[in-house]
Amino acid sequence: MFTYIRKAQYHETDQMGVIHHANYVRWMEEARVAFMDEIGFSYRKMEESGVVSPVTALTVEYRRPVHFDDTVELRLRIVKYDHGVALELSYAFFDLTTSTLCASAVSRHCFLKNGRPVSLRRTLPALDTLLTGACEGNDAEP
Amino acid sequence: MFTYIRKAQYHETDQMGVIHHANYVRWMEEARVAFMDEIGFSYRKMEESGVVSPVTALTVEYRRPVHFDDTVELRLRIVKYDHGVALELSYAFFDLTTSTLCASAVSRHCFLKNGRPVSLRRTLPALDTLLTGACEGNDAEP
Amino acid sequence: MFTYIRKAQYHETDQMGVIHHANYVRWMEEARVAFMDEIGFSYRKMEESGVVSPVTALTVEYRRPVHFDDTVELRLRIVKYDHGVALELSYAFFDLTTSTLCASAVSRHCFLKNGRPVSLRRTLPALDTLLTGACEGNDAEP
Amino acid sequence: MFTYIRKAQYHETDQMGVIHHANYVRWMEEARVAFMDEIGFSYRKMEESGVVSPVTALTVEYRRPVHFDDTVELRLRIVKYDHGVALELSYAFFDLTTSTLCASAVSRHCFLKNGRPVSLRRTLPALDTLLTGACEGNDAEP
Repeated sequence: MFTYIRKAQYHETDQMGVIHHANYVRWMEEARVAFMDEIGFSYRKMEESGVVSPVTALTVEYRRPVHFDDTVELRLRIVKYDHGVALELSYAFFDLTTSTLCASAVSRHCFLKNGRPVSLRRTLPALDTLLTGACEGNDAEP
Repeated sequence: MFTYIRKAQYHETDQMGVIHHANYVRWMEEARVAFMDEIGFSYRKMEESGVVSPVTALTVEYRRPVHFDDTVELRLRIVKYDHGVALELSYAFFDLTTSTLCASAVSRHCFLKNGRPVSLRRTLPALDTLLTGACEGNDAEP
Repeated sequence: MFTYIRKAQYHETDQMGVIHHANYVRWMEEARVAFMDEIGFSYRKMEESGVVSPVTALTVEYRRPVHFDDTVELRLRIVKYDHGVALELSYAFFDLTTSTLCASAVSRHCFLKNGRPVSLRRTLPALDTLLTGACEGNDAEP
Repeated sequence: MFTYIRKAQYHETDQMGVIHHANYVRWMEEARVAFMDEIGFSYRKMEESGVVSPVTALTVEYRRPVHFDDTVELRLRIVKYDHGVALELSYAFFDLTTSTLCASAVSRHCFLKNGRPVSLRRTLPALDTLLTGACEGNDAEP
């Protein structure tokens, strides 16, 4: 499990007095970027090698609101990494200020080079090895 | 089915050269607000009566990217409306510029007054009637 | 004067109950893009020809808040267009819902091709002619 | 001078491949909030006491672009604090990744309670003392 700490910002609130739900999707991306820094192959480096990793699907379940100035811990796991072509991550949003699990989420990703799907096994084997090692799910590798 | 037309804005792009995926969640909200205008009970009016309708869950599937300056038609349906306490909507993102179905999504909502779940049947019967009438699903009303 | 009509969205509010001030900067960009459509040389077309027009400076004065669901008319003018190399626009934010002048703003822009400043006179003479014609200021052209 | 460190996020880029200019305005707000934490009277606490501090004007000058994954240091100063009723701050955006001054900015603020302008001298004397002490300008106090 990788954790990413994020302060909830004023510009992220809405007039309900809570963090607007669309921002959770941005925090998930920030956590992914920080996770890649952590495993030693930054998202920037991946893009500079010509590979992008768009989101193909996401699900978010909102349990309790997050408020301005709360400190939130995102707990990220790789739950599936299929043969270098698809990645699935899960996220728990734990509000450290209120000790509350506020939301949980999943995102799925593919890898593209020049607009076409690629397998990281061939295209970026160094990153493939790191993601395989980081995967906690059962489906990762035989 | 209700449709909401939206021009994809420059500030919504990212450096992949496409509309950033978090913005789809905002467009869904814009479509809901326009839908409530259409049925005759605006979101503003609902909030002024003390009721808010937070998102409890959402799912988005991204098929094809949307690009800056494309005109996108969001096709919104109420797929479930349970006894005034829960609402489920579906969305199709159809890019009119490229004639492509770009994404599909679902959002679920509850209704709160003073921070507590309420049924619109008692709290806002006029809105309850309108949503019941607009619901296209099977589970709406017996 | 060119006008751009914009509904203030829920996701643009903050917990003060008003449209967050950073969004005004986005609305200014939306108005510029719509203005270029109007004069017949779209921002998309300009970018496809390799030219971008970054903001070099901006000033916003906030007079009255804009609220969710208000309809705002942005009134855009080209106040200066210097020899194809620099553009200055002014904006008035008029809230049609409350008949109030809510804000006024100025933005300045240059033109870049391959990362270097260019003059539209040589690089995109068709756009140069259109901008010269649209300029209302005194400093535009002798 | 107070410094606030900020990583430039992917969702903050646009298709020019740089951080979109509207996000600088959000970073300025984040820096103000962190500054108030630093001096010992948080923005949250101020709002809980019924006082808000809206932006009345802002100016940003953009010199060099900031790119995704860059680490930016915002250098904030209080340049003017007038009798508890108006506050002016300056900001320098220094990109630590490229050792470049990327932008400079100024924001002006008033203080409102129940929608009306107030002087912090009477309304929140503890905060007034802290802001007076932090002000580096000449016009602060006689």
